Amino acid sequence: MNEVRIGVVGVGAMGADHIRTLTTSVPAARVTQVFDTVRTGVGIPPADSAEALIEDPEVDAVVIASPDFTHADLAVACVKAGKPVLCEKPLAVTAEDARRVVDAEVAAGRRFVQIGFMRRYDPGFVALRAAIADGELGEVRLVHAVHRNASSTTSTDDVSLVTGSMVHELDTVPWLLGDELTAIRVESPVTQGFRDPQLATLWTRRGVMASVEVFVNAGYGYDVRCEVVGTRGSGSLEPASTLSTRVAGLHGRRVRDDFVAHFADAYRIELGSWVQSVGQGTPGGPSAWDGYAATVAARAGVASLASGRTESVDPGPRPELYR
Amino acid sequence: MNEVRIGVVGVGAMGADHIRTLTTSVPAARVTQVFDTVRTGVGIPPADSAEALIEDPEVDAVVIASPDFTHADLAVACVKAGKPVLCEKPLAVTAEDARRVVDAEVAAGRRFVQIGFMRRYDPGFVALRAAIADGELGEVRLVHAVHRNASSTTSTDDVSLVTGSMVHELDTVPWLLGDELTAIRVESPVTQGFRDPQLATLWTRRGVMASVEVFVNAGYGYDVRCEVVGTRGSGSLEPASTLSTRVAGLHGRRVRDDFVAHFADAYRIELGSWVQSVGQGTPGGPSAWDGYAATVAARAGVASLASGRTESVDPGPRPELYR
Amino acid sequence: MNEVRIGVVGVGAMGADHIRTLTTSVPAARVTQVFDTVRTGVGIPPADSAEALIEDPEVDAVVIASPDFTHADLAVACVKAGKPVLCEKPLAVTAEDARRVVDAEVAAGRRFVQIGFMRRYDPGFVALRAAIADGELGEVRLVHAVHRNASSTTSTDDVSLVTGSMVHELDTVPWLLGDELTAIRVESPVTQGFRDPQLATLWTRRGVMASVEVFVNAGYGYDVRCEVVGTRGSGSLEPASTLSTRVAGLHGRRVRDDFVAHFADAYRIELGSWVQSVGQGTPGGPSAWDGYAATVAARAGVASLASGRTESVDPGPRPELYR
Amino acid sequence: MNEVRIGVVGVGAMGADHIRTLTTSVPAARVTQVFDTVRTGVGIPPADSAEALIEDPEVDAVVIASPDFTHADLAVACVKAGKPVLCEKPLAVTAEDARRVVDAEVAAGRRFVQIGFMRRYDPGFVALRAAIADGELGEVRLVHAVHRNASSTTSTDDVSLVTGSMVHELDTVPWLLGDELTAIRVESPVTQGFRDPQLATLWTRRGVMASVEVFVNAGYGYDVRCEVVGTRGSGSLEPASTLSTRVAGLHGRRVRDDFVAHFADAYRIELGSWVQSVGQGTPGGPSAWDGYAATVAARAGVASLASGRTESVDPGPRPELYR
Repeated sequence: MNEVRIGVVGVGAMGADHIRTLTTSVPAARVTQVFDTVRTGVGIPPADSAEALIEDPEVDAVVIASPDFTHADLAVACVKAGKPVLCEKPLAVTAEDARRVVDAEVAAGRRFVQIGFMRRYDPGFVALRAAIADGELGEVRLVHAVHRNASSTTSTDDVSLVTGSMVHELDTVPWLLGDELTAIRVESPVTQGFRDPQLATLWTRRGVMASVEVFVNAGYGYDVRCEVVGTRGSGSLEPASTLSTRVAGLHGRRVRDDFVAHFADAYRIELGSWVQSVGQGTPGGPSAWDGYAATVAARAGVASLASGRTESVDPGPRPELYR
Repeated sequence: MNEVRIGVVGVGAMGADHIRTLTTSVPAARVTQVFDTVRTGVGIPPADSAEALIEDPEVDAVVIASPDFTHADLAVACVKAGKPVLCEKPLAVTAEDARRVVDAEVAAGRRFVQIGFMRRYDPGFVALRAAIADGELGEVRLVHAVHRNASSTTSTDDVSLVTGSMVHELDTVPWLLGDELTAIRVESPVTQGFRDPQLATLWTRRGVMASVEVFVNAGYGYDVRCEVVGTRGSGSLEPASTLSTRVAGLHGRRVRDDFVAHFADAYRIELGSWVQSVGQGTPGGPSAWDGYAATVAARAGVASLASGRTESVDPGPRPELYR
Repeated sequence: MNEVRIGVVGVGAMGADHIRTLTTSVPAARVTQVFDTVRTGVGIPPADSAEALIEDPEVDAVVIASPDFTHADLAVACVKAGKPVLCEKPLAVTAEDARRVVDAEVAAGRRFVQIGFMRRYDPGFVALRAAIADGELGEVRLVHAVHRNASSTTSTDDVSLVTGSMVHELDTVPWLLGDELTAIRVESPVTQGFRDPQLATLWTRRGVMASVEVFVNAGYGYDVRCEVVGTRGSGSLEPASTLSTRVAGLHGRRVRDDFVAHFADAYRIELGSWVQSVGQGTPGGPSAWDGYAATVAARAGVASLASGRTESVDPGPRPELYR
Repeated sequence: MNEVRIGVVGVGAMGADHIRTLTTSVPAARVTQVFDTVRTGVGIPPADSAEALIEDPEVDAVVIASPDFTHADLAVACVKAGKPVLCEKPLAVTAEDARRVVDAEVAAGRRFVQIGFMRRYDPGFVALRAAIADGELGEVRLVHAVHRNASSTTSTDDVSLVTGSMVHELDTVPWLLGDELTAIRVESPVTQGFRDPQLATLWTRRGVMASVEVFVNAGYGYDVRCEVVGTRGSGSLEPASTLSTRVAGLHGRRVRDDFVAHFADAYRIELGSWVQSVGQGTPGGPSAWDGYAATVAARAGVASLASGRTESVDPGPRPELYR
């Protein structure tokens, strides 16, 4: 495979981990430039600006791992520069911003953007999706999802909890089902201050309901679970820890405390797949449309949390480019 | 312990199982009379009518296991006859019927009625309640409950699914938390015909939310699960099957197909405890008020399924007798 | 069922628990006398001596729960008195003592003795045996058994670890397989002082090998496991704890710390079944021969630990009475 | 990292999988030549002979994945050519052959050989080893290992089952414990024909005993388990499958049917680590001495199976090079 020269914008925890993964596990990838407004010295030549990095002819493809609110502008710049880009989730914090990326791609008549919904590459989620698609579970009626962090880091207010954390489920559920979200309701048992946890209910076009818990101060660790319930049976993600101990009256397995370790396989497979697809011209993973649709759902969720009502999720008609 | 002579009204599956359990596992119990409108020949002398059985001076206590709609009248008759009674859940199908039992007890100035909410005696639920009470999980925020049958038997319409099946969770959740339900919403992904599964959301006075799935045609077996989520951690019921097999590429445990086997321990402990409390004069288990409160919540759930709105749950003030 | 009046010899931990179980869970049973050389005041009339209790015409059946070395004499006394007896395991510490009980029964021409191998009534072991008998696992080749205590109590030397603890597996393995032991080897990684843990290898007549670990100072809790491996698959006991917690980075289930709680169901079912069979004239559970055969195997195990060799297990021909 | 040009000898299942892993997941690796006596056409230029490949100055390092009996000669050739080599396990079928590789390295005064004991890179085994080293389990007394294949492929006689399959445990056990094997006994419940399964007992220098089951016709799938038992607790490998299903009365997880999939992570990490260490000059993984010691133990095991006795394991003094 031809080498792909990659520029990385944002070298915080996520960006640094992507650089490490690209370097150690993705043969065709070479990270040749980075840009970060505050961090330097990761051993890779820094660019003068994100824009300079994106436009540099020595950069074949871009990874965006800067703060959420910068994603859309950077993604649009990549589209305009004709550069394939892996943009960390969420595509944007607002639906309008996300839409601009879709519009840019439609205008360009070509897809450049892949969204970092890494769960689509997680072996457990992939197996769950296959079990659904194979009909092993019958006709799906319900999904139950749980998404917990030991303590909040990035999601620190009611809005970012939806747009930054729950946005994973807002992509995962329709992707698992091959379906689309049509409505969302977000509630919380906590009515004062930071409304964490949140309990969302989702509806899909084909009539599936999903219950989604997001809790970013769950105390005990990082935990992602999902059960899909059909008319013949159910499928559930199981924890992947491969060691149990029996000590002091307890038979247990450790719960990981961060998502990077939990989804290490997913990130590695995601990056490998993305680099391969970039080498072949078109990213095959979650599209700008997927990122936009998840953000539309997230904003409807934010609205629901405030209004106390079920809100419809309507990203509008899907452009030809994404069919 | 002095022998307790028990009359059983209704000898269908549940009643017959109670007779078997009382006979084989509850030393102080002797089933001396039964009444059933259709079944005979269980080897125990039949009474002429339920009323005759209840009023017979040779009967010390009564078990009601007849159809749901008959429970309230029979329970009232027991109260009026001054007989301790274990009434299978639900106490009634309507809130008005259930209220009549409460009113009868209040008028009598004494408790006679215990409701057959057997989960309160299940070792798993008891351990979960203890973990909550001990503060091991921190402050509770959420409960997730699942309640599935392989195929529907008794719950065959939208109403009976709530009043007959979900009524278990409507008692379990407040009992686990030492709290009271204040609102309920019931929805279903199925919008035509029999609305099964149902997904309920519950709210409690102290600000806990619960998601409850009831699915009486889940296909694969009988399954009851519950997770309680607090600020320090979560506690979950685990299946009790004590054999796993590795055969033909699958490492698995059998799922029971009926609730009688699943809750055999709970029924045995419930009956043993009830007989003991009867010998001591006052039933110590779930009261007529608990049965009434669960039915009030169930009817609010039925109303919610029809209205599409969250409905408040208001059983009114708790009489002195039940404090 | 007619009432069975039971005398209990030995009211230590095991005897007291049997009295509790008989009183609370076995309707036909009434404990009418007890005898213990040191303990009194369990609220049941004490007999003057074990012999007086056994011979009292007001005692229909006897439970022996006194120290191991007294079992054989007391069992012989029961046989001579024509009284059904449930004798706690082991039947005896030496093969000669155990044989005297068999000889007494053969002389009487009738079975009176049941051995307290309660695992035969444990739902997990029963399900495992059924899976073998049903052919679900194919032809059995191997058994792996683990038997651990948090810390040693009764088994405190090399001999009692075999005759008192491992004797369970020496009965369980042939019972599971419907087979007989023919040889045993016992070794220990600990070569000085108390040789705990012990690792035994068993051979059966039909060519199955079993590895058995007994460790009475395992530190973390009480643990009994068993896997049976056949040509089609394997079956394993699974822990029965019905609550898991996720707290402080660990997802775990509690391990019980004593065998009485672990096997509470088994003891209850054992006692219920024994009382029922006593009422019908003949004990249906593990026989004096089973107790003798297990003790013969245990003594061969003790010899092996000392000799360093595999020792044959030969209880001699099975009398007609036990076929 | 500088590119490492790799020649692969043997492109059967294992060799082909290594090529795939090196190509897709190890950035610094480039497979530039292959040799196989029968297979061609894997899209990589074929060498004229294994020797030519090894001696080619365009080959920086060699992977040996040809039949077991060829390993030693090829490894010696690599040592003589001064080429780092990853040699699939076992290093040899006989102790003499394995010793020749050690002698060649000692003569060269430098280590070139790494043995493909991939379990040392498996996350589960690594975590288990860490739990032991951390003292979490107390002082280790026992190890129980299980190693099953659905049906035999490469191990098709009594000898190859030990030298080809059990050789994994003969390396794993001392590696986990930081200890050395001193004796082995191998027995089988099958006394006629192919003696499968085999039950081995191992002893280590520091006084740990291990029970090891190897069964290459276990029917249901590929299964590797290991429990380490200490004076404070035990640690166990757990299956890594991340999906469970509840269908048709069974709650289960799939068991993989081949070791390549089961140990995919281990192989990837092994190859990545090896390529990195090759770039730095010295292989850091299991050495020729480890491969030789495991083969010495395996041959003692073969002898034991024939003799019926415990056989000592004595590889002789460890050369300075391997301390």
